[in-house]
Amino acid sequence: MSAPEPYRIGVVQMACGPDPDANTETAVRRVEEAVDRGASVVCLPELFRTQYFCQREDHALFDEAEPIPGPTVDRFAEVARRRRATIFVPLFERRSAGLYHNTTAVVDPEGHLIGRYRKMHIPDDPLYYEKFYFAPGDLGFPTFPVPGGRAGVLICWDQWYPEPARLEALAGAELLFYPTAIGWHPAEKEEFGKAQHDAWETVQRAHAIENGLYVAVPNRVGHEHGDVRGDRAEGPGIEFWGGSFVADPFGRVIAKASHDREEILLAEVDPREVETVRRHWPFLRDRRVDAYGAIAHRFIDPP
Amino acid sequence: MSAPEPYRIGVVQMACGPDPDANTETAVRRVEEAVDRGASVVCLPELFRTQYFCQREDHALFDEAEPIPGPTVDRFAEVARRRRATIFVPLFERRSAGLYHNTTAVVDPEGHLIGRYRKMHIPDDPLYYEKFYFAPGDLGFPTFPVPGGRAGVLICWDQWYPEPARLEALAGAELLFYPTAIGWHPAEKEEFGKAQHDAWETVQRAHAIENGLYVAVPNRVGHEHGDVRGDRAEGPGIEFWGGSFVADPFGRVIAKASHDREEILLAEVDPREVETVRRHWPFLRDRRVDAYGAIAHRFIDPP
Repeated sequence: MSAPEPYRIGVVQMACGPDPDANTETAVRRVEEAVDRGASVVCLPELFRTQYFCQREDHALFDEAEPIPGPTVDRFAEVARRRRATIFVPLFERRSAGLYHNTTAVVDPEGHLIGRYRKMHIPDDPLYYEKFYFAPGDLGFPTFPVPGGRAGVLICWDQWYPEPARLEALAGAELLFYPTAIGWHPAEKEEFGKAQHDAWETVQRAHAIENGLYVAVPNRVGHEHGDVRGDRAEGPGIEFWGGSFVADPFGRVIAKASHDREEILLAEVDPREVETVRRHWPFLRDRRVDAYGAIAHRFIDPP
Repeated sequence: MSAPEPYRIGVVQMACGPDPDANTETAVRRVEEAVDRGASVVCLPELFRTQYFCQREDHALFDEAEPIPGPTVDRFAEVARRRRATIFVPLFERRSAGLYHNTTAVVDPEGHLIGRYRKMHIPDDPLYYEKFYFAPGDLGFPTFPVPGGRAGVLICWDQWYPEPARLEALAGAELLFYPTAIGWHPAEKEEFGKAQHDAWETVQRAHAIENGLYVAVPNRVGHEHGDVRGDRAEGPGIEFWGGSFVADPFGRVIAKASHDREEILLAEVDPREVETVRRHWPFLRDRRVDAYGAIAHRFIDPP
């Protein structure tokens, strides 16, 4: 058997300012730099075009949503074509009047929009009021072709769930991106900050281990007040914790960013390593598919 | 709402010698000590009555299996009744001629056998030839009453899978035991040992985080050659890595044993902490049960 050759991925950790078009141009430059440094697949952080506006519920902010395809996809499709790269572009998708999603569009090295993933698990917590903005995804857990095989993309809150990662692996993913916008509540950081960040990294490393695949997580940095074109949320804001990383199929962190600086992570993804790790830890072989049906239940109520 | 009071659990990390009855008496003493130190629920390591005999395939070793109920369950039922404790007792179960399981029996403070779990995921790897000895479990993923709520028990190889932990949580578990027999191949330890142990701890901490429950893992220690009554396996043996631990519902390790000594870990399990963590990280609320059906498939083959 001859497995595909290793390839390099780029994970963009960036700060987002009040001007969406400026953020897009920053993201374009980062993607171009990642490609110039050898990446053939690049992923941007969740909703990178704006500061994280879900800190409050404001109907006016639906103005920031755009269709897919649309102007931002066009911009990155052109970058993808010119630089011969696959780019994962997280966007606020306007699907119809009154119907919006938290989506990642995928453009390939020909500059074609080859698909999209719509965030399936939508959080709703203080300062993360996403259920107000985003309808739950309805496209399941697709995978997309990349030079070495297939990659999946999940988004932020999805990262706390074992089911989506497993379903991506079953659908052939050898690489899983988690574009993210997560940070500390300033009032909680001292008491819980370390444990929260550690739990976040741990669950995603576990997805890599359990499924024998690479996991790559671009997060944003910066203390934001959800400032979109000068309109800021009230309150103390969120300190986005960066810490973007790449884990190999053994769960080892092979690239990791700081908590507070913009960075581009580069890492090698080796399909042969996926093959080797899964041979030695053959979890897929022994799954008890006859006994997992209740996973599709909300709960197993006592008799 | 008034949640049950916290209670103390005991996790026994022990070394196993060639004499099964001597191992049983060692285990009895450890359980008694754990109870004397306040534990009301105690779990022993996988197959503690023998050295880990699955290092080779030998039909004579089926002689070590016993029925449940049977002599070892009787022994621990008496300890449980006398000490007013719930005890998780991992055994080599003889169910019928030609039908054996890797099982954990559960005895309650009245000294009753209240149920059993039969290991669902059976490994088969060099030095872990379990598929030869154990038929896969057919009892699903049950939970058992403990003083503060309900506990589940899974066994060793199960620990690498997200599905069983999720199913235990859905069935009401707030505490999950993983009796284990895992160690290093001497020839692999230097190159892979640290990463293997780290992956093992990481996936189980992730089960705690993803499901908002306590995870408690008793492993064995000692460099064994599968010596059962003087009959040893050929080869370099396995260096069982100990490292028994307890993680809280945040995934924080709250008790942890050495790699090479017999120890009893004690830890407080607080059902109120389960309630609090799950309120703040409401993963169960947002599960996409409409979209998980394919988890019960072996693979999702490309069209």
